Amino acid sequence: MKAIAVVPGAGVPEVVERPVPEPSSGEALVRICRVGVDGTDYEVIEGSHGGVPDGDEQLILGHEAVGIVDDPNGTTLEAGQYVVPTVRRPPAGVETNEYFERGQPDMAPDGEYVERGIVGAHGFMAEYITSPADCLVPIPEELARWGFLVEPISITEKALEHARATRSAFDWRPESALVLGNGSLGLLTVAMFTETLGYDRVYCLGRRDRPDPSIDIVERLGATYIDSRETSVPEIPAVYEPMDVVYEATGYAKHAFESIEALAPNGVAALLGVPDDWSFEISGGRLHRELVLHNKALVGSVNSNRRQFERAIDTLAALPEWVLEELVTGVYGLEALDRAFPAVTAPVPTAGSGSTTDTDDDTTIKTALEFEPI
Amino acid sequence: MKAIAVVPGAGVPEVVERPVPEPSSGEALVRICRVGVDGTDYEVIEGSHGGVPDGDEQLILGHEAVGIVDDPNGTTLEAGQYVVPTVRRPPAGVETNEYFERGQPDMAPDGEYVERGIVGAHGFMAEYITSPADCLVPIPEELARWGFLVEPISITEKALEHARATRSAFDWRPESALVLGNGSLGLLTVAMFTETLGYDRVYCLGRRDRPDPSIDIVERLGATYIDSRETSVPEIPAVYEPMDVVYEATGYAKHAFESIEALAPNGVAALLGVPDDWSFEISGGRLHRELVLHNKALVGSVNSNRRQFERAIDTLAALPEWVLEELVTGVYGLEALDRAFPAVTAPVPTAGSGSTTDTDDDTTIKTALEFEPI
Repeated sequence: MKAIAVVPGAGVPEVVERPVPEPSSGEALVRICRVGVDGTDYEVIEGSHGGVPDGDEQLILGHEAVGIVDDPNGTTLEAGQYVVPTVRRPPAGVETNEYFERGQPDMAPDGEYVERGIVGAHGFMAEYITSPADCLVPIPEELARWGFLVEPISITEKALEHARATRSAFDWRPESALVLGNGSLGLLTVAMFTETLGYDRVYCLGRRDRPDPSIDIVERLGATYIDSRETSVPEIPAVYEPMDVVYEATGYAKHAFESIEALAPNGVAALLGVPDDWSFEISGGRLHRELVLHNKALVGSVNSNRRQFERAIDTLAALPEWVLEELVTGVYGLEALDRAFPAVTAPVPTAGSGSTTDTDDDTTIKTALEFEPI
Repeated sequence: MKAIAVVPGAGVPEVVERPVPEPSSGEALVRICRVGVDGTDYEVIEGSHGGVPDGDEQLILGHEAVGIVDDPNGTTLEAGQYVVPTVRRPPAGVETNEYFERGQPDMAPDGEYVERGIVGAHGFMAEYITSPADCLVPIPEELARWGFLVEPISITEKALEHARATRSAFDWRPESALVLGNGSLGLLTVAMFTETLGYDRVYCLGRRDRPDPSIDIVERLGATYIDSRETSVPEIPAVYEPMDVVYEATGYAKHAFESIEALAPNGVAALLGVPDDWSFEISGGRLHRELVLHNKALVGSVNSNRRQFERAIDTLAALPEWVLEELVTGVYGLEALDRAFPAVTAPVPTAGSGSTTDTDDDTTIKTALEFEPI
């Protein structure tokens, strides 16, 4: 079968041949349909995050997938059923551990998990994968074509669940939300705030010039676009309003700390970015005082569990179709691998291509690879 | 009646004469017995935090009090009953607001509250006070002599309630706790972790040389004293262990951010300090990444509500008597006002005294003023 693999930090994604995997007991064989591409894939490609399984040089990419059950292999799944695989698995050679037993592998610390397509385990960019049946979340057929968005939505489901938890000791009535970042995860989150979570006032920070398709989505959702070159994060309360929730999806480390200043009293900032090492000066005394005197909270969030995938499928069903149509700017077959990875800076060597893609491509928001039409 | 007042930022606490207040409808008249002194009092005296009521030059100090109901004035309280007053009240001229109506004045933002003895309202260092009956929390007579510790304990009750809330979206099983600061609030919190909250391993960071009475309390509680001059906060996981909970009670702004590095995966730091403005460099990229990849949280906490005062009374009852005896190093009458405020750097002009007290006094942990013996 064909798969998309990379030598992290030393290559670009390429089509490789691999044997079709055979499901073990409790596993199903899944024919992969579509796999989304996101910022984590680029970090893995660059070698700044994640890593190959022990003994391998290449990693099969992909952690945002939707597929169709090919062989249920005696599990409770049915052949022909569309499914979305979760990402974390127990480490190689380990059956399970307390985090997986509790259904909370997203809370497992380093060494207690691998992540398919990211760290220590091959991903979903392949014609077939095998997976334990309890890591395959059924998705209705009518949503299957968008199924590769379930994983990123589940990331926000988890982050906001944890953000709400931080405020659960009192009667919290949030109305305003600020999303830092107008990439695909940021835009999905803006859509969740406006369409499914009922926030009155939603803002999205970016640094794009108009006309821009991401700004169009923000504004069509009824949210307010904030240009970070005109209004810095600490200035946002004065220029717009203090925010009950900040959702950081930029990976820009200063935002993690500046978000304290963007928050309203009793607000919470959910942090999602994974920046490199970077030292900088902060107004530490003021930020510390702000956190304390105004009961503010910061909460980091990574990965998501099956329950959050299930909620993400409900959210996906509730989002307007136009948001998904506008957000997903390209679904490409393997022959157009380079177009699925537009931010890869070196040439992606696919048949008949070889073009160098442009990382400043302003028309691409979210891409996916298609292995099998839905 | 006698009261203790100060011109914030321009004087030292002094005995003043004031008329005995008259309770309005719904208020009781309380004879004050004891009032604790804490770091916030010193910030108010220095003028770095809080402020006088509109139209006044002096503020009557005191927010950690216990008293006895003198005149119930038709409320449900009984004469002779010991009570602890809560601290926040609606702003002058305002009957109530949504935060007070919900029983959560601790979550009210600036402008929606005053704090007795701290900002905008006179405190409890007076022979008599009046207070709405629902802001007076009954305390059993056998605990009354320690009743001035209920307010500081309630501060920790709230902070840890909010810290636990941040972790309520998953199955969290904390075992280790680090208290930053070996002042009276830090020591009370160490005692809560070891005696009432059942933490297996508790640590307390300070910067005192042995022999020292605060280190003695830490060690007698079975906790481990960490000298910050030998082990910095970021080094603590390697030298001791990563911490499930960090409780910051130093007001040292770097600790707010360094606490991220002291936390175990899925850990939470509760921040209590109120530092002045101060800019400094942090390893912001690494700290941001740590928050995200290890699902860590920071939560600021200020003040406390009646429910937390009630829980604090239960906690006070459960703490070993020796902890309280060792912690409270002096209870002084008004004739020894300077000894109740040992960290006031200017001479406190009381009768027959006039000595300059030593801020590095290593034998004082917690003091209180006594207006009426219990």
